[in-house]
Amino acid sequence: MELGPFTDDPGYRAALDLDAASPLDGWAERFVIDEPDLIYLDGNSLGRLPRDAVDVLSHAVQGQWGGRLIRGWNDGWWELQLEVGELLAPVIGAEAGEVMVSDSTTVNLYKLALAALEARPGRRRILTDDLNFPSDIYVLESAAAHATGERQVEVVPSDGVEGPVEAIIAALDDDTALLCLSVTTFKSGYTYDVAALTAAAHRVGAMVVWDLSHAAGAVDQPLSAAGADLAVGCTYKYLNGGPGAPAFLYVRSDLQSELPSPVQGWFGHADPFALDLEFQPVDGIRRFHVGTMPILSLIGTRVGVALAAEAGIEAIRSTSVSLVGWAERLIDEVLVPRGFSFGSPRDPGRRGSHLSIGHPRAWQITQALIDQGRVLPDFRAPHFLRLGFAPLYTTHQEIHTAVHRLARVVDEGLWETYPQDTSAVT
Amino acid sequence: MELGPFTDDPGYRAALDLDAASPLDGWAERFVIDEPDLIYLDGNSLGRLPRDAVDVLSHAVQGQWGGRLIRGWNDGWWELQLEVGELLAPVIGAEAGEVMVSDSTTVNLYKLALAALEARPGRRRILTDDLNFPSDIYVLESAAAHATGERQVEVVPSDGVEGPVEAIIAALDDDTALLCLSVTTFKSGYTYDVAALTAAAHRVGAMVVWDLSHAAGAVDQPLSAAGADLAVGCTYKYLNGGPGAPAFLYVRSDLQSELPSPVQGWFGHADPFALDLEFQPVDGIRRFHVGTMPILSLIGTRVGVALAAEAGIEAIRSTSVSLVGWAERLIDEVLVPRGFSFGSPRDPGRRGSHLSIGHPRAWQITQALIDQGRVLPDFRAPHFLRLGFAPLYTTHQEIHTAVHRLARVVDEGLWETYPQDTSAVT
Repeated sequence: MELGPFTDDPGYRAALDLDAASPLDGWAERFVIDEPDLIYLDGNSLGRLPRDAVDVLSHAVQGQWGGRLIRGWNDGWWELQLEVGELLAPVIGAEAGEVMVSDSTTVNLYKLALAALEARPGRRRILTDDLNFPSDIYVLESAAAHATGERQVEVVPSDGVEGPVEAIIAALDDDTALLCLSVTTFKSGYTYDVAALTAAAHRVGAMVVWDLSHAAGAVDQPLSAAGADLAVGCTYKYLNGGPGAPAFLYVRSDLQSELPSPVQGWFGHADPFALDLEFQPVDGIRRFHVGTMPILSLIGTRVGVALAAEAGIEAIRSTSVSLVGWAERLIDEVLVPRGFSFGSPRDPGRRGSHLSIGHPRAWQITQALIDQGRVLPDFRAPHFLRLGFAPLYTTHQEIHTAVHRLARVVDEGLWETYPQDTSAVT
Repeated sequence: MELGPFTDDPGYRAALDLDAASPLDGWAERFVIDEPDLIYLDGNSLGRLPRDAVDVLSHAVQGQWGGRLIRGWNDGWWELQLEVGELLAPVIGAEAGEVMVSDSTTVNLYKLALAALEARPGRRRILTDDLNFPSDIYVLESAAAHATGERQVEVVPSDGVEGPVEAIIAALDDDTALLCLSVTTFKSGYTYDVAALTAAAHRVGAMVVWDLSHAAGAVDQPLSAAGADLAVGCTYKYLNGGPGAPAFLYVRSDLQSELPSPVQGWFGHADPFALDLEFQPVDGIRRFHVGTMPILSLIGTRVGVALAAEAGIEAIRSTSVSLVGWAERLIDEVLVPRGFSFGSPRDPGRRGSHLSIGHPRAWQITQALIDQGRVLPDFRAPHFLRLGFAPLYTTHQEIHTAVHRLARVVDEGLWETYPQDTSAVT
């Protein structure tokens, strides 16, 4: 099939103009791009490798681990998860000292949800929605099981695309301990108003834990200004921290010395190397440390987060809005007439940096698009292609090309030779 | 000061003979050694960089993350924590399918201790000893707080060197839910008889969680043959997995489908990519997965664990016994007359691969030994030098040189110019 660029299409020139006008024009050069004909629309699952990371990680292995050995801990490893937290804070609208890298997103959510529940004894209800990442719901059930008293997770149903804001607000009551939502939902990309939902929860005395996994490095929903209590998120998507890069957590400053850490570890001790048998929690965000961090991965995280901090969340957000709006327009013009449905919110203020498009043959189309179309999207069951637009390196021109390649996959029936199967691991 | 080698000392020749007779003679060449005059006796805190890891990690960054992007998950990342677990199993005497890499040691201990407590409802007592790593005690208190019913951690006192075996056995009763011990204790190196203590706990119906952090890759205390229930451990010490490399956990095969995972995450789901709102635990060790693993660090872990597996635990253990016995002899001959005390067990069967030696000026001596003696040991409060002997790369000759350098630091009073201070981060 023809891979383009589809220069005869009037959209081609429009895409180039949009790229030239972007505040992040040229930033793609900060990333390693081995296969220029491959269009990567999965930066919302795993961000690209920053060029800086190649030398930094090589030095981490040979210069630091190999050369400095145990002395590496005194050279900076000990404070690294706090240092990356400081870099990340402005990107997610937090204050200095409110953010730290730690564990995986799911483990962090367990810790913070459990801390929140213990801070709201006697309240039974934990609210979330059915757009949330399923792992968040699983781990809320774990936190519910291990908190004192009776607790119960309730999943507020949505229409599958838009966050059920009114139903959530109606459900909040004085028996609600905790509201947990993804700022940007993983499938449709619906993006909550963090300040409005936080205020609604606070009106009934409930705490909120936000999951920023699909939002950090893409949307601007400031946490501190919204009075957000607690948040977690991953760094391997739009923050380009590397495969499985360690996650982060946010605790509002006034809560840090009020909440005990539910998983006490020596990294959260006031004097870790006293090696005292009694746990004395340190003040500040550091108390939510548990154990030793995976340093090589954390060094990769630092590079990715530093790039996002350098670009600035304003430029990131405006670029994202432009990319997503451009993709929406092309989907409507080119793909909806070919049988695709638009599976994401229409309000630019209520979505993140990815879009889902539905098609009954989505699995087969995804395989053909990868193999023959040289476009890497995500498949999400039961019948969605998820297209991620990474503000730091995806271009309007790439989106134009990708949409037209997808049209050709359909027009030429290239998906028909692929079996129907949903066992994807992407 | 003179750095040696101290070829006039009769021990010098004896050391060379011992090295030549070692089944692991020459294995040091498998590791990057940048400073040949530096004697590294802290491989029990952070193991050296395996030569293989340099290329493997470079490929992981550029070839896999940079080149394969999200496709890396299908190329092997998804199963990697299980694959490393399979490599590690024979090194710790476990069966295939009983070991997995996951999270940090402290988080794993939280998960398994909580699972064990929930499997022993109505029993109040959690026993450990005061030789255990303090973080283990902190996190046992967390597990106690979050398990159902009243639970209480009790720390059995020791003499500071030997495990209080009789007192532990006397303390075990039908109100004991859980016994948690370090197989090899972090300071004195006392090493428990895993089979004997497991049997004693089982006689009263208690579960046991073993912490192998200071034992894995150094001692041979097989888990499966001992009927051990549960175990955790780190991979950055004798397993040479890299700084903060992810930890491992062991669950005896018949317990795997009996115990629920207390921190449910999507990696432990029977069908993770169904993204079902209901948690359905997978059978087998995989259910104790939580979230996405730090892949770069995990790839480093794989290299280190593969080396230990290749060397084999029999050769590792016999080399360790020889190195530690040799160090003991030199400490007795050279250092005890200079005011050092021997702070580790005397029975070769009851210790791991490190020794602690006490001295009232241990902090200052440690600083002088590092700066002027070119030996890297660990300091452990209040007054111990901890000397680790990594079976894969420490040589008898290095131990001979290090002991004589330490003697010179004392004889020449080189420590006297260093301030007394215990704020070490090593």
